[in-house]
Amino acid sequence: MIDRLCIIGVGLIGGSLAQALKAAGGCGEVVGCGRNIQNLQRARQMGIIDRVETSIAAAVPGADLVVVATPVGAMEAVFRELARHVSVTSVITDVGSTKRSVAVAARNAFGERVSNFVPGHPIAGAEQSGVEAARADLFAGSRVILTPLSESDAEAVIRVRTMWEQVGAEVVEMDVDHHDQVLAATSHLPHLLAFTLVESLSRMGNNVEIFEFAAGGFRDFTRIASSSPPMWRDICLANNDAILTVLNKFGQDLKRLGEAIEQGDGQLVLSIFQCAKEARDKLGVRN
Amino acid sequence: MIDRLCIIGVGLIGGSLAQALKAAGGCGEVVGCGRNIQNLQRARQMGIIDRVETSIAAAVPGADLVVVATPVGAMEAVFRELARHVSVTSVITDVGSTKRSVAVAARNAFGERVSNFVPGHPIAGAEQSGVEAARADLFAGSRVILTPLSESDAEAVIRVRTMWEQVGAEVVEMDVDHHDQVLAATSHLPHLLAFTLVESLSRMGNNVEIFEFAAGGFRDFTRIASSSPPMWRDICLANNDAILTVLNKFGQDLKRLGEAIEQGDGQLVLSIFQCAKEARDKLGVRN
Repeated sequence: MIDRLCIIGVGLIGGSLAQALKAAGGCGEVVGCGRNIQNLQRARQMGIIDRVETSIAAAVPGADLVVVATPVGAMEAVFRELARHVSVTSVITDVGSTKRSVAVAARNAFGERVSNFVPGHPIAGAEQSGVEAARADLFAGSRVILTPLSESDAEAVIRVRTMWEQVGAEVVEMDVDHHDQVLAATSHLPHLLAFTLVESLSRMGNNVEIFEFAAGGFRDFTRIASSSPPMWRDICLANNDAILTVLNKFGQDLKRLGEAIEQGDGQLVLSIFQCAKEARDKLGVRN
Repeated sequence: MIDRLCIIGVGLIGGSLAQALKAAGGCGEVVGCGRNIQNLQRARQMGIIDRVETSIAAAVPGADLVVVATPVGAMEAVFRELARHVSVTSVITDVGSTKRSVAVAARNAFGERVSNFVPGHPIAGAEQSGVEAARADLFAGSRVILTPLSESDAEAVIRVRTMWEQVGAEVVEMDVDHHDQVLAATSHLPHLLAFTLVESLSRMGNNVEIFEFAAGGFRDFTRIASSSPPMWRDICLANNDAILTVLNKFGQDLKRLGEAIEQGDGQLVLSIFQCAKEARDKLGVRN
């Protein structure tokens, strides 16, 4: 049981977590902290948070658990404020989509007290953003990856794990760099492709008509291009190494396909598509 | 009213069209023709076709309307058989995803009698294929593009248009080359990206784990990689010019994004993402 939970950044993820913990009876007071007072007031009206604070200094004292749910680019500044004001017994976690940059920021900001910090990443979310899109069941059945640091206190890890399990998530632990590589492949690269495809088409001369003939497949395929641009800019800059590695590999594979088409090599084109279909079909039931 | 409809290639599109026309009272007998006798018998059991024929010679005599719904790579051979056996009064159309290659094949096969042929393309379908996936409402509210040839008989165009309107589709006409360019951008390129992404990831060392952490966005994004490999190989070879044009443009845009990430140019990354989100959000209500 978390007596007082502080959420810094009450958007889709932070808001859904607060809502889900309340629904599960897993927390007492929820303090919401952010820069946008209207957003926080809306979250309070929705019953997602109990108290509104616009400064970390006022929000965090006495919190058992502090969840940083801002875009990753803002985290180092938040951590520095936290280091000044958070109680020594508070456990701190985050929900950022990249973990190496967060780990570096946390070590810089917290120094020795980084032992209270446990990096985390719920593999959930949607192309919507903002507290209006929050829902209590967002994490039910989803995965949460924790990437504890060598300094992380074992008790702190357990408290963060327990919080996620209470909202129905399956928690796995992995190494920071491994997390960033896996996510670069399965999440960051697809987002980059979707953004680039839509941008590329939108700059073609007849783009209005092009989008007019976009069928269902195109709509599904590009849905993630509606995701938050600043959030994804931050992710690209924070996880640049792993992203550039998979992006280059993808670029080579796409070039190979283009060359096969140019040369009329139907056998190679077919084998690429068959390999893809086989792998995709294995994703199976959650299809 | 079509007294006798002949569908050559009773898969998702051909089967759905027959089913929809029957449901709309738009046709009498439906003759299904194909090479796979089990598939045709299944279609008859499902009530989609009335008569099973495995040869074009037996299937087409007396048909008012013949719909060629095979993969585009098989069409020229089908057209040559049709030219030998079809009645001079029969109207012929196809449902292929590329139109220039189909127009060339039709002119080669039909000679002067190409006036009875009207190329068509329903913008519908799914990553499923096969008659088992057929449904009578597949075309309701969808677009069908007709690309009449200069030789196409005006009466034949009207008959094909009427058929599609009877199953609830909105019919538009456009030039063959323009069709191929628009579809290369909105359909063929996205399929190539989805196939390549899944294939690229599946060849990474830890691919089992990578797919394990693939979230909902990845599933939506790659769903079209479950589409039929031979059908898409045919499309790539048939529409190679238009596809290579958009593929090269996309490759350049992706390279530009990679360079922006490499240089830490957050402003450029953000502006690409914002432009994409704006265009994607405009796709609007059918989201």
